[in-house]
Amino acid sequence: MKPLIVLQTDFSLTWGAVAEMKGVIKKVDPTLEIIDSCHEIKTFDPFEASLALQTIEPHFPKGTVFVSVVDPGVGTDRKASVAKLSDGNYVVTPDNGSLTHLKHLVGIQEIREIDETRNRYAQAEAVSVFHGRDLFGYCAARLAAGEITFEEVGPSYPMGEVIECPEYHLQPTIAQGHAEGFVMTGLKHFGGIQFNIKNEDWYKTGIQLGDLVRIRIAYDGEERFNQLVPFATSFGHVEKGAPVLYCGSSLYLSLDCNQANFMATYGIEFGKEWTVSLVKQS
Amino acid sequence: MKPLIVLQTDFSLTWGAVAEMKGVIKKVDPTLEIIDSCHEIKTFDPFEASLALQTIEPHFPKGTVFVSVVDPGVGTDRKASVAKLSDGNYVVTPDNGSLTHLKHLVGIQEIREIDETRNRYAQAEAVSVFHGRDLFGYCAARLAAGEITFEEVGPSYPMGEVIECPEYHLQPTIAQGHAEGFVMTGLKHFGGIQFNIKNEDWYKTGIQLGDLVRIRIAYDGEERFNQLVPFATSFGHVEKGAPVLYCGSSLYLSLDCNQANFMATYGIEFGKEWTVSLVKQS
Amino acid sequence: MKPLIVLQTDFSLTWGAVAEMKGVIKKVDPTLEIIDSCHEIKTFDPFEASLALQTIEPHFPKGTVFVSVVDPGVGTDRKASVAKLSDGNYVVTPDNGSLTHLKHLVGIQEIREIDETRNRYAQAEAVSVFHGRDLFGYCAARLAAGEITFEEVGPSYPMGEVIECPEYHLQPTIAQGHAEGFVMTGLKHFGGIQFNIKNEDWYKTGIQLGDLVRIRIAYDGEERFNQLVPFATSFGHVEKGAPVLYCGSSLYLSLDCNQANFMATYGIEFGKEWTVSLVKQS
Repeated sequence: MKPLIVLQTDFSLTWGAVAEMKGVIKKVDPTLEIIDSCHEIKTFDPFEASLALQTIEPHFPKGTVFVSVVDPGVGTDRKASVAKLSDGNYVVTPDNGSLTHLKHLVGIQEIREIDETRNRYAQAEAVSVFHGRDLFGYCAARLAAGEITFEEVGPSYPMGEVIECPEYHLQPTIAQGHAEGFVMTGLKHFGGIQFNIKNEDWYKTGIQLGDLVRIRIAYDGEERFNQLVPFATSFGHVEKGAPVLYCGSSLYLSLDCNQANFMATYGIEFGKEWTVSLVKQS
Repeated sequence: MKPLIVLQTDFSLTWGAVAEMKGVIKKVDPTLEIIDSCHEIKTFDPFEASLALQTIEPHFPKGTVFVSVVDPGVGTDRKASVAKLSDGNYVVTPDNGSLTHLKHLVGIQEIREIDETRNRYAQAEAVSVFHGRDLFGYCAARLAAGEITFEEVGPSYPMGEVIECPEYHLQPTIAQGHAEGFVMTGLKHFGGIQFNIKNEDWYKTGIQLGDLVRIRIAYDGEERFNQLVPFATSFGHVEKGAPVLYCGSSLYLSLDCNQANFMATYGIEFGKEWTVSLVKQS
Repeated sequence: MKPLIVLQTDFSLTWGAVAEMKGVIKKVDPTLEIIDSCHEIKTFDPFEASLALQTIEPHFPKGTVFVSVVDPGVGTDRKASVAKLSDGNYVVTPDNGSLTHLKHLVGIQEIREIDETRNRYAQAEAVSVFHGRDLFGYCAARLAAGEITFEEVGPSYPMGEVIECPEYHLQPTIAQGHAEGFVMTGLKHFGGIQFNIKNEDWYKTGIQLGDLVRIRIAYDGEERFNQLVPFATSFGHVEKGAPVLYCGSSLYLSLDCNQANFMATYGIEFGKEWTVSLVKQS
């Protein structure tokens, strides 16, 4: 079987852009199978694209070709690239920070810049702004279909040139009984947030299931949330509406309410200005 | 051909959760075909999940494996189950009321609790909150792929233990020329509402196409809507913007406006506190 | 391989309607492949449906069966039709203006009205309002599966009876150094708008990349926007937040902001009441 193509974008499904990408992929090879991941990545935000790629990537069969198009610099000189990961998957994306997490957590074996002279969808009219369809989707399809090898994508370039999101390198503080970091991301639909603290690092604090944790969240230094919250395995262990701290399936420490929207209830957003301190109640 | 897998959740498509479910299904067997039903079931509401399952279920080929994940009790002790329906379809779901309508309208031949020791997706890190991916999606894939038989899902349990939504058992009043019930559900996108009155029961009132019906809707006893509305076959028979009563394709009596949003226009929501009385104008 | 089926509707994905269409298609032939285009076409607006069809149509493999269901007149006497396009694709749609752009830009070879006696999905209960599932989806599946030929769809009717959207025939004014038209459509997600001025007509103004253009937008004659905006190849050539005029991948002249939402920022909507004048700065 040919590799799956998995699409993530910030295009939304409110217009036909994603469908056009699929049409072009099917034109290259109608036997290719396409799966949609999220098309509502925060617009113009490669850090969110990078996080989302990291979250979904391990759960697909090896050889999958991921196409990620969150591209504030479309039409400028950022590279259009294909990364071959150390685990055998591929990522087709603007090289603008979207590869940060996968570079560090899975590893990039080699990265190549798409040669537009060979791997660009030719239309009747020359138009320069829909790279998602004409460059990323088309090149991914050619690769997945076996029309081109990875080497034929275009020239390889040094790993040191891969763009990284600076937020990724803001390390949390981890110590016995407490941790500090920032609100790395959040999910508006359910309202939970995630800190830049990996589950495996959180365990190093020695804080145990059932412990109460004093959580303080501040925006630009101004306190916005200050409560004692239990650390539990999941939502169901607290009363309906109450906050709960848990190790999320995304692999990061998470804060949410049981059957209620934490972000909306407490007016919390995300980004590096939103700092958090977590201290075990003694 | 292998059975289709149909997914419905309250996850939304605004993050990668549904994609992770699909990835895990494809890891089990890349030849499985997955169709998305709605991923915006009202959050934490098994009654809405149950209604939605009933609406889509008859329209898929026999043998289809439906996966429904609306799970306010994830991580607690509600059962994770697979129901074999009397018509040959399967439903993989938390047993929390989501099976109510299908149990009564199609029939459950047998229900089994998923044996987590055999039918759970194994990750590097133990995480307990993403049952949609690790338990429901994974087990559905194993079943659809033929890796396990229905008997190998886990132990069978008595039909009497299947959880039912109490709202289902609130029967409407049906009499000559009038009916009473509640606003069972609504569709925010178009704005139509449905009463807990089946089309087939409505016909017993003797009210005919073209008749005018006095419709009163109240919230907690306080009147919110009171108008004479024609009973017709569809929207197109009234003026643009006007309300119309009709027998919906969902099999329930429905109220909507022609090319306008009834819920938004009149401030009507749904739930058992929203009662309705319908009386034929004499 | 059998032809692809591509679905576009104004149903949204917030309920199971699109899934029911897919189920019925799969019941006809489980080997058919279905691709979703946009399901958030502006509700009840055949002009938007027509525009969206035109945008996606060229990018799919020849033979594709498009199903478009934006149907303010469901249940009334508008025709349910299948158009065979001059390029070999098919469109299954209510004949209500949704075919306008394709008729003129691709050409309709022949159009037939769906014979409901042969090509309608039979359910237990007679219900008249879900033509998307029972008529359009079902007939498209029969055609794509090869169960019926195009001739067996139903009787052919004259091309002159095909309904056209009057907005399509509002021609822009194109002259040396300036153009006038209206805001034809817009994209709420990103906020860009498109004028009823084709890229190829815009070039006839002689306005060059890098030129500054005085853009005035008015609603019902009242000015709402008046700025000098550069004409460039894409967003990336102006400062973050600044407006930019460019030839869109949709083939129409477009106005947007770089990484910001033009419609929300300036309170601009679309429709023929929103006129625009574009004059090259001398």
